[in-house]
Amino acid sequence: MANNLGITPRSENYSEWYNDLVLKADLADHSAVRGCMVIKPHGYALWELMQRALDDMFKATGHVNAYFPLFIPKSFFEREAEHVEGFAKECAVVTHHRLKPGPDGKGLIVDPDAKLEEELIVRPTSETVIWNTYSKWIQSYRDLPLLINQWANVVRWEMRTRLFLRTAEFLWQEGHTAHATYDEAEEEAMTILNVYRRFAEEWMAVPVLTGLKSEGEKFAGADHTYCIEALTQDLRAIQAGTSHHLGQNFAKAFGTQFQSKEGKLEYVYATSWGVSTRLIGALIMAHSDDKGFLCPPRLAPVQVAVLPLGKDDATRGLTYPVADRIADSLRAIAWNGVPIRVKVDKREKESPGFKYNDWELHGACVRVELGPRDLEAGHCVVARRDTGDKLTLPLDEALAGEVAALLSAQQTALYDKALADREAHTVRVDTWEEFQKLFEGENAPGFVVAHWDGTQATADRISEVTKATIRCIPLTPLHPDDARPGACVLTGNPSPQRVVFAKAY
Amino acid sequence: MANNLGITPRSENYSEWYNDLVLKADLADHSAVRGCMVIKPHGYALWELMQRALDDMFKATGHVNAYFPLFIPKSFFEREAEHVEGFAKECAVVTHHRLKPGPDGKGLIVDPDAKLEEELIVRPTSETVIWNTYSKWIQSYRDLPLLINQWANVVRWEMRTRLFLRTAEFLWQEGHTAHATYDEAEEEAMTILNVYRRFAEEWMAVPVLTGLKSEGEKFAGADHTYCIEALTQDLRAIQAGTSHHLGQNFAKAFGTQFQSKEGKLEYVYATSWGVSTRLIGALIMAHSDDKGFLCPPRLAPVQVAVLPLGKDDATRGLTYPVADRIADSLRAIAWNGVPIRVKVDKREKESPGFKYNDWELHGACVRVELGPRDLEAGHCVVARRDTGDKLTLPLDEALAGEVAALLSAQQTALYDKALADREAHTVRVDTWEEFQKLFEGENAPGFVVAHWDGTQATADRISEVTKATIRCIPLTPLHPDDARPGACVLTGNPSPQRVVFAKAY
Repeated sequence: MANNLGITPRSENYSEWYNDLVLKADLADHSAVRGCMVIKPHGYALWELMQRALDDMFKATGHVNAYFPLFIPKSFFEREAEHVEGFAKECAVVTHHRLKPGPDGKGLIVDPDAKLEEELIVRPTSETVIWNTYSKWIQSYRDLPLLINQWANVVRWEMRTRLFLRTAEFLWQEGHTAHATYDEAEEEAMTILNVYRRFAEEWMAVPVLTGLKSEGEKFAGADHTYCIEALTQDLRAIQAGTSHHLGQNFAKAFGTQFQSKEGKLEYVYATSWGVSTRLIGALIMAHSDDKGFLCPPRLAPVQVAVLPLGKDDATRGLTYPVADRIADSLRAIAWNGVPIRVKVDKREKESPGFKYNDWELHGACVRVELGPRDLEAGHCVVARRDTGDKLTLPLDEALAGEVAALLSAQQTALYDKALADREAHTVRVDTWEEFQKLFEGENAPGFVVAHWDGTQATADRISEVTKATIRCIPLTPLHPDDARPGACVLTGNPSPQRVVFAKAY
Repeated sequence: MANNLGITPRSENYSEWYNDLVLKADLADHSAVRGCMVIKPHGYALWELMQRALDDMFKATGHVNAYFPLFIPKSFFEREAEHVEGFAKECAVVTHHRLKPGPDGKGLIVDPDAKLEEELIVRPTSETVIWNTYSKWIQSYRDLPLLINQWANVVRWEMRTRLFLRTAEFLWQEGHTAHATYDEAEEEAMTILNVYRRFAEEWMAVPVLTGLKSEGEKFAGADHTYCIEALTQDLRAIQAGTSHHLGQNFAKAFGTQFQSKEGKLEYVYATSWGVSTRLIGALIMAHSDDKGFLCPPRLAPVQVAVLPLGKDDATRGLTYPVADRIADSLRAIAWNGVPIRVKVDKREKESPGFKYNDWELHGACVRVELGPRDLEAGHCVVARRDTGDKLTLPLDEALAGEVAALLSAQQTALYDKALADREAHTVRVDTWEEFQKLFEGENAPGFVVAHWDGTQATADRISEVTKATIRCIPLTPLHPDDARPGACVLTGNPSPQRVVFAKAY
C-alpha cells in the first residue's frame, strides 16, 4: 500500500515503488503515445546536469558534437548483417509523407499517393547513417581520427516499457569515432569506458563494474563491447553504458577506406558508445528511498531548499529576508565548480510538514528550516536528505560553507553506501546447486561471480534455467583469485577466469 | 564561377554562394536522406552557442525545459481544424513497427503483421501532444502559469529544401505556455518576442523588425502570431522567429480547463514560440562574404585563430611557445562572460596563405600571425575578419585585452553595418506602378513599406502579381508617419497604417 506520499514502500513492491517515485517526484510521466514518456521539468533538469557533465568530459577527451538525420533509409540497414538482425524487429517505419481528408470528409487518412519509394526507419542507433556520411568525409589518414558525438533521440519499439529504464523513444548520446588502426580504436573504446565509469562513480555516486560483454550480449555489429554495470537496491544488474569496438565492420559495409601514410588503401576502424536517459533509472534505483527521490548532490536539480516559516505576514516579513540572504550566500559558493542550486520555498498555503516531505520527495539534498523561534535564537535547522540528521547551526557567515560541506559529505556517503551494498551482495559460487538456488524463482542475489566455460551454449543454458545472464567479464578481477582458472559452474569444463552473473533490468 | 576557395561570388549567384559557403565552411552537409542535413561539428558548435544563449534567456524569464514524445497520434492532429490543415500535407507518417526478411530471403520488407492500429506522425510541432499532457497537469489556477520549453528535432516534409533554411528535419526549441488569462498569455508572447529580438540583435548582430503577422501568414491554430524579420544581403526577408498567442484554441481542442480563483471552470490560454537551426541560415545571409563565413564574435565557435609560423623545427620551436602563451592569455579573459575561444593552428604541411584563407573561410573573428621576424621585432600581426584591417601589436601583456577589444568592436560594427544596409533598403511606396516595378521579375528591393487595406484578398493578389508578401505589421512604426492612415497601394481602399512587404526566404 502506498504511503501518504503515494509511494509504495520498497519492501512491499520494489517495482511499484519505482513507478510511484518517478511519477510523484515529477521526474517523468506517461504519454498518450504507446511506450513514450514525457520527461517532466524536474527530471529534465537532472538530465541537463548529466548532459553537461558528460559533454564536458567528452570535449576534454577531444570529441566534438554534430548532428545526423533522424531517418535511416531501409537499404542502409541491410548492409551490416548482424546490425540489421539486432534492430529490424523493433523499429518505427515511416512509409508515407502526407495525410489527407478521409473519404467521408471526416478525419484524416494516410494519402496512398504519398507513399515513399524507400521506407525510412526512425533511428534506433545511427551507425549506418553516420558511416554512410563518413565515407564521404574520410579519404586520407590526415582525416583521422574523427571523434564525433551526437545528442539525440532514438526509437526502439520495445514491447514492455518502463519509465526511463526501457521506453520506445529515449534520449541519449552516441559517439561514433573513426581510426586508422585497431589499436587506436581500442584505446578510444577504453577511454570512453573510463569516462562512463568516472561519471557513474564521481557524479552519480554509483559504483560500477567495468568489463567485456560476452558474445551473446555484445552490440549487434560490434567486434566487442565494453560496459559499465551497476547494482540496484533490489539486487539486479543494470547496464548503464556501453562502448563498442566495431572493428572494420561498418567501414566494410559502407566502403569507408582511407589512404594510409604508406599510400595504401585501408578500411577504417570504428568505435561507438552511448549512455541514455536510462541513467536516470539507474540513479533512482541506486539511492532513492521510501521518502522519494534521493539524488547525489553533484546532479541534484535543487541542492538546498530553504524554508522560511511563518504563519502570518508579520512573521514572514522577518524570516523571508533572512532566507533570501542565506540563499544568496549559498549561490555565491561555487561548489563542484558551479553556484549552489538553491530554492527558497515561499508557498504560504502549505504546512511546514508538507514542505519537508515535498522536498524530500523531490530530492533536495539539504533542507534549511528557518522559523521565527530559530530566528530569535540566531540559528537555523539544517537537515540532510540521506541520513535525516538534523543540525542546529548559527546564522553567521560560516553557514553557507557548512552547508556546502554537507553536500560534499553526502556525495561521498552515497557512494560509500552503494559500494558497501554492492560488496555485501557480490558472492562467489562454485557449485551449480548453489548457483541455481541463489537465482531461484524471483530471487535476485546481486552479483554472482562464477566460472564459465566461455561457450555461448553454456551461457544460454544458464540464462534459460536461472534467468541470470553474464553481465560482464571483468577487465580487472574483483578479487585477485577471480583471475585464476577453474571449472565452469554448469559444465565443469575449464574456465580461464570468473565472470559476473546477475538478473538484469 | 567559384573562387579558389570553391565559393561562387555573391554578385554572380547569391544562391550558389550560400550553398558553397555552407559546405566549404564545414557548417553542414547533405545527407543520403531526402531533404535532411548533417550538421557538421563546426556548424553544430555554432548551434550550441546559440542554444546556450537562448536557453539562458528563457531561464532568466522563468521558463524550464522538458521533453515530450517525438510521435503524435493521428487523431490528436484532427482535433484542431486549422492546425491540421497547416501540417497534414507535409508530415512523415509511421505506419509499422517491424521489418522482416523479404520473401526471397534477401533484403528487408515492412512486416504487414506489424501495422500500427493508429498511425503516428513525426512531430512537425508539438502543440497537440503537449496540450494533451497539459490537460492532465492543469486543474487549478495554482498550476498556472506553466512555462515550458523543449529543445527537439521536428520534421516537415518540405519539397524544396536548402541547408539550414528549409530542411525536412530541423532542430529547434518550442516553448509552450499555459495561462489563466488572455492578457497574461499576451504578455508572455511579447516577452518572448523581445527575447528573440534581443538575441538576433545582441548575439547575431542582425537587426530585426518585430511585428504581427497578417491572417494569411499566421501560425495554423493561432489567435495571432508575432515575428522577427531580418533582411538578407540579397534583400529578401527572412523570418527568424515566431511567437504565437494561441488563445483558447488548443485548450478547447484538448479540454484543458482549470478552476479559477473564483471557483469557475475556465479554458486555459496558451502561447507557443520557436526558433530553429534556420537562424544559422539567417546569420550567414546577414554577414558572410565571398571569403566565407563571417560570424559575429559572440557566436563564433573560434573567436581567435593564432598562427605561429615557421618553415623548420628550429623556428617553430620559437614561435609555438609564444603562440601558446598568447592563447592562454586570451583564454584567461572572460569576454562576454566566458573565456575567449582560441585555436592555435600548428598544421605544418599548409602554407601561411592557405591558413589565412582557411580561417577566414571558417569565420575566425581575429587572426593573430606570429612569424620569426615578428618575434624578433617583439610584435605580432593581428587581422580583423570583417574589415581585413591589420594591426601590428607589441607582444606584451596588453595584447590579450587589445584582441578582446577588437572582438567587441567587430560585434558592434557588424550590427551597425547590417542596420545601415537595412535602412538603405527600406523604401516607402505609394503607387501600385512603383510597387510592381520594384518587385518585377527577380528583383528584390528589400523592405517595402506601403499601405494595405487589411483584406486577405488584397494580400493574396499582391503576392500573386509580385511574389511579395506582407512580412509584418510593425508593432512600432519604422517611421512615425507610417502609423498614419492612407490608401492601399493596390486597391486605394482605406488603410490604417503602413505594413512591410518583401520577397521572402
